[in-house]
Amino acid sequence: MKKIGKQTFIFEKYPYLIGSYSIVGPKEGKGNFAQYFDEVLKDDTYGQKSYEKAERKLFLTAVERAMGSCGLDRDQIDVLLGGDLMNQIISSNFTARQLQLPFLGLFGACSTMAESLIVGSMILDGGFANNVACVTGSHFSSAEKQFRYPLELGTQRPPTSQWTVTGAGCSILSTTKSSIRITHATIGKVVDWDVTDANNMGGAMAPACLETLSTFFQDTNTTPDDYDLILTGDLGKLGSEVLRDLLEYRGYKTSTNYADCGQMMFTNDQKVFQGGSGCGCIATVLNSYVVQRMRLGKLKNVIVVGTGALMSTVSSQQGDSIPGIAHLVVLKAEK
Amino acid sequence: MKKIGKQTFIFEKYPYLIGSYSIVGPKEGKGNFAQYFDEVLKDDTYGQKSYEKAERKLFLTAVERAMGSCGLDRDQIDVLLGGDLMNQIISSNFTARQLQLPFLGLFGACSTMAESLIVGSMILDGGFANNVACVTGSHFSSAEKQFRYPLELGTQRPPTSQWTVTGAGCSILSTTKSSIRITHATIGKVVDWDVTDANNMGGAMAPACLETLSTFFQDTNTTPDDYDLILTGDLGKLGSEVLRDLLEYRGYKTSTNYADCGQMMFTNDQKVFQGGSGCGCIATVLNSYVVQRMRLGKLKNVIVVGTGALMSTVSSQQGDSIPGIAHLVVLKAEK
Repeated sequence: MKKIGKQTFIFEKYPYLIGSYSIVGPKEGKGNFAQYFDEVLKDDTYGQKSYEKAERKLFLTAVERAMGSCGLDRDQIDVLLGGDLMNQIISSNFTARQLQLPFLGLFGACSTMAESLIVGSMILDGGFANNVACVTGSHFSSAEKQFRYPLELGTQRPPTSQWTVTGAGCSILSTTKSSIRITHATIGKVVDWDVTDANNMGGAMAPACLETLSTFFQDTNTTPDDYDLILTGDLGKLGSEVLRDLLEYRGYKTSTNYADCGQMMFTNDQKVFQGGSGCGCIATVLNSYVVQRMRLGKLKNVIVVGTGALMSTVSSQQGDSIPGIAHLVVLKAEK
Repeated sequence: MKKIGKQTFIFEKYPYLIGSYSIVGPKEGKGNFAQYFDEVLKDDTYGQKSYEKAERKLFLTAVERAMGSCGLDRDQIDVLLGGDLMNQIISSNFTARQLQLPFLGLFGACSTMAESLIVGSMILDGGFANNVACVTGSHFSSAEKQFRYPLELGTQRPPTSQWTVTGAGCSILSTTKSSIRITHATIGKVVDWDVTDANNMGGAMAPACLETLSTFFQDTNTTPDDYDLILTGDLGKLGSEVLRDLLEYRGYKTSTNYADCGQMMFTNDQKVFQGGSGCGCIATVLNSYVVQRMRLGKLKNVIVVGTGALMSTVSSQQGDSIPGIAHLVVLKAEK
């Protein structure tokens, strides 16, 4: 069985990451990853009549151009895997309607990029497909509207809050050889340390991230030092500091090789408190910065951990705490 | 590659269906499958303070007793796969929190049971696990509240409407041999024939079901006559008649071997117009009637098609039509 330890899966032969694309909104295009993103919108409505429709157009562009980046036509994609934060994952569903590809809808909140890479890797290494497309993303305005307040209210944001990234990313995984291969995955458990503040998502998700990372290190008998980069999704500044502390309590010391996409997404001048969040956060950074640095040989052995907060407005209104989940994949640069 | 034709996947060795459980509400317990369900609640609040919490308790019971039905402990389950209709699939997330199992969240609306069986089959036949649990379900009152009107309003139901099934079902798939094996799967595309009436879900989903079934017949070079039973999820009376007609236009004649769980769920006296719907519809029928009849050798070669309507209240309010999806698995009774 291609499983080691408790929750870690090994991909013996496939998949390779052969294509990628990242598209972001104007604010993200002024942030720290500006030079890496494939495309930056000038207008976050993307010419659409609603933010929800803009969000799905981001998804469509990401998939189409990721296919283009590796010269694949639509009929060469065996399965499309995707999910998003919208109720009933409408962004992904309507994208799949447009693309007319066999589609598996996923939901792992902001961990969905990692979840889609895991399921995609199992499909490819399991011998069921030659190419799959993994897509996710988010839009600041559709997320605010659904999860928090109408934008028009101008509600003051608390200091622990994060800013949902407007953007989408798509990875094409394949049995065709390339310089980046996914070698391991750890499927997360749902972890809940009783955080109830929906404006402190980093704090709510950090424990799940801790559990997935420490299980992975145990399962593989490795330590943080064995990796050039350990990249978490959207814990933000506070959440990533919490994770760093929690890892240290467990005996795992991280150094400059640990970073969080949310923490790094925006500059300090952009006044977004704890940084970026949303499915689009890790999806756009993975499919730009990480892939580009790996192709250049600057990064060789990378852990990517998608982190998701699994509440809904209803669960919060009914007094439930915020459960988190974290899914992990390892990417290796191979010659 | 374990794929034939356009969208159909072959499972060469695994998985076997080794365990199952079905639990339903009082109304379903007075319907046509009453004698087959493992458990019928007397009170659809299931002792909980909200319908949402009742729904997740149904999920928990289904998973725990499905594991019990095949003598597995929780630590023998490698992955839990699940999804539901609630925004951000909270029923599945909170169940996964309780069970502390590695968890992949899915969303395919009412096709989720079939989707979970497909992903689970790929994980097992791909060599990544020994046992996985697939769970989904729905609750009439949580679904009405979220998708339609407050129950207290007593809104009149139109004649094309269906009744969301209160119930959950869980299947345990395994590499351990049993008398039922999943042999094929077809992953559906999102199909939209421009139905906009959220009270005619059967009509909205029938075209997706048509496409998946006819693609499957083409991919496998089989016809409806090759199967004892072709069972769709929740097209209801009207939707299943639409499907029958559409299949006939394509040259596929179905006879008494075609049935729909929604159409059959309730008796005519129960006044639910077109019948049952919801993730729990096929989940409970598959994990009771179908599994029991297959174990008795009364059914040998069964197509199960989960059908899902992929809209949200927001997509409908913004004028979008209702896209559908249908995922298919083939179950074979083996000696």
